[in-house]
Amino acid sequence: MNFNQKLDHAIEKNNSLLCVGLDPDFEKLPESIRNVKNPQFEFNKKIIEATADLVCAFKPNSAFYEARGEQGIRDLKMTCSYINKNYPDIPIILDAKRADIGNTNNEYIKFVFGYLRIDAVTLHPYLGHETIQPFLELKDKGIIVLCKTSNPGAGEIQNLIVNGEKLYKLIARKIVNEWNKNNNCLMVVGATYPEELAEVREISGDMTFLVPGVGAQGGDVEATIKAGLNKAKKGMIINSSRGIIFASSGDDFADVAKKEARKLRDEINKYRV
Amino acid sequence: MNFNQKLDHAIEKNNSLLCVGLDPDFEKLPESIRNVKNPQFEFNKKIIEATADLVCAFKPNSAFYEARGEQGIRDLKMTCSYINKNYPDIPIILDAKRADIGNTNNEYIKFVFGYLRIDAVTLHPYLGHETIQPFLELKDKGIIVLCKTSNPGAGEIQNLIVNGEKLYKLIARKIVNEWNKNNNCLMVVGATYPEELAEVREISGDMTFLVPGVGAQGGDVEATIKAGLNKAKKGMIINSSRGIIFASSGDDFADVAKKEARKLRDEINKYRV
Repeated sequence: MNFNQKLDHAIEKNNSLLCVGLDPDFEKLPESIRNVKNPQFEFNKKIIEATADLVCAFKPNSAFYEARGEQGIRDLKMTCSYINKNYPDIPIILDAKRADIGNTNNEYIKFVFGYLRIDAVTLHPYLGHETIQPFLELKDKGIIVLCKTSNPGAGEIQNLIVNGEKLYKLIARKIVNEWNKNNNCLMVVGATYPEELAEVREISGDMTFLVPGVGAQGGDVEATIKAGLNKAKKGMIINSSRGIIFASSGDDFADVAKKEARKLRDEINKYRV
Repeated sequence: MNFNQKLDHAIEKNNSLLCVGLDPDFEKLPESIRNVKNPQFEFNKKIIEATADLVCAFKPNSAFYEARGEQGIRDLKMTCSYINKNYPDIPIILDAKRADIGNTNNEYIKFVFGYLRIDAVTLHPYLGHETIQPFLELKDKGIIVLCKTSNPGAGEIQNLIVNGEKLYKLIARKIVNEWNKNNNCLMVVGATYPEELAEVREISGDMTFLVPGVGAQGGDVEATIKAGLNKAKKGMIINSSRGIIFASSGDDFADVAKKEARKLRDEINKYRV
């Protein structure tokens, strides 16, 4: 089963386009969790158990683990192993935003797909497709390239005009027409720019988008879903991190996360009909 | 002392623009090293001892450590601590090519400048300067943004024409005129494109470039140095990784690395007069 099939299976099984971002900012963990061994893993474990039947994917962001050095990498590895063992139907996306020259990308591949044994990874497009070729050759994995990101200043580079159109649209075309030879590419398109999301959908056929930016970053769910769905009323992985995992700062965090996840999943589904 | 001052001090002290890339690809380590505890650290330690009086900086690339998971991160941390303790005059650059949205970049900052306690880091420009602002605010650190990379396919995105000029030149202008408010920015410009290096030098005044691509990647030293020097006959950190650290695959690797480092340092200096 390749990444897109695994994702599709999870979407159907849980009737969900929701992805929960596992970004366990250590400073924000409940006091009771901060003092246990492997705190980020123990936090994640409770979030995963509470939300695994409500999501189509989990997305740990590497930065929140690296911040804790060796201990954080251990917690990340334990998190991925825990999902793979207990929820093997749910794909894991590492939000790592990597991209280096070719021989170095082979090392990132060892980290993401060898050491962590997960399903998909996010990449920067700036070095071109020649350099991320080692990723593009992994037919069973999801290779998710940044197209239009969710941050307020995303347009500074991404909206520059190239050949009469904005850079992110040109990059979307490249991904769809040239980089996706193995049908394993996806794109990051932020929920904070629904008009741009609609434009990228027009370029991209049915390709799946990873969509950050709803929740804490302010993206509107209705506008996002209406702009980004593909013909099959899917094609989007809607990520929320802080809005779900830190919805409560108390010891009831997992219960509250479950409620928030269900609420957001159902809200998303409301606009899929 | 800020990064540029520390770098300048190391350049003068060792009469060197050479940076040794600490990219200890595990598969290429000598058999005798692969079997010890903390193998990447032990390998690096010998390379560092052999070359510390010949370089202006050391540059570990994060990927080669991440590939080994928790153990690799431990070896990376030990490497940085070893340099900081024994060679405090030599700056350390983490080649990590990161960039995420703002709150996530704060976590990368904890990893690079908190956990590893090093001097500079490489970043992707694609998300714009708003998002790397947490890095740009670190006045004492070196913030090294990718401009024109050394890989064969770098031009696919970087040479796109924007406002009548190539994207990498526009990005160079942005870095110099808008992103460098704290005089802490540097740029990556590859040695494999000496003409482009000369163009970026023209745009950039005396800003320092991190220059990968000599050695294994085929960049010509004479052409690179002549194209990239600033008015002070400096302004370049010339990196070589594989060409030095894996010049011998035997147990004499450190001695051979020392010879290769001296040879390349002296060759670089020949074109600085």
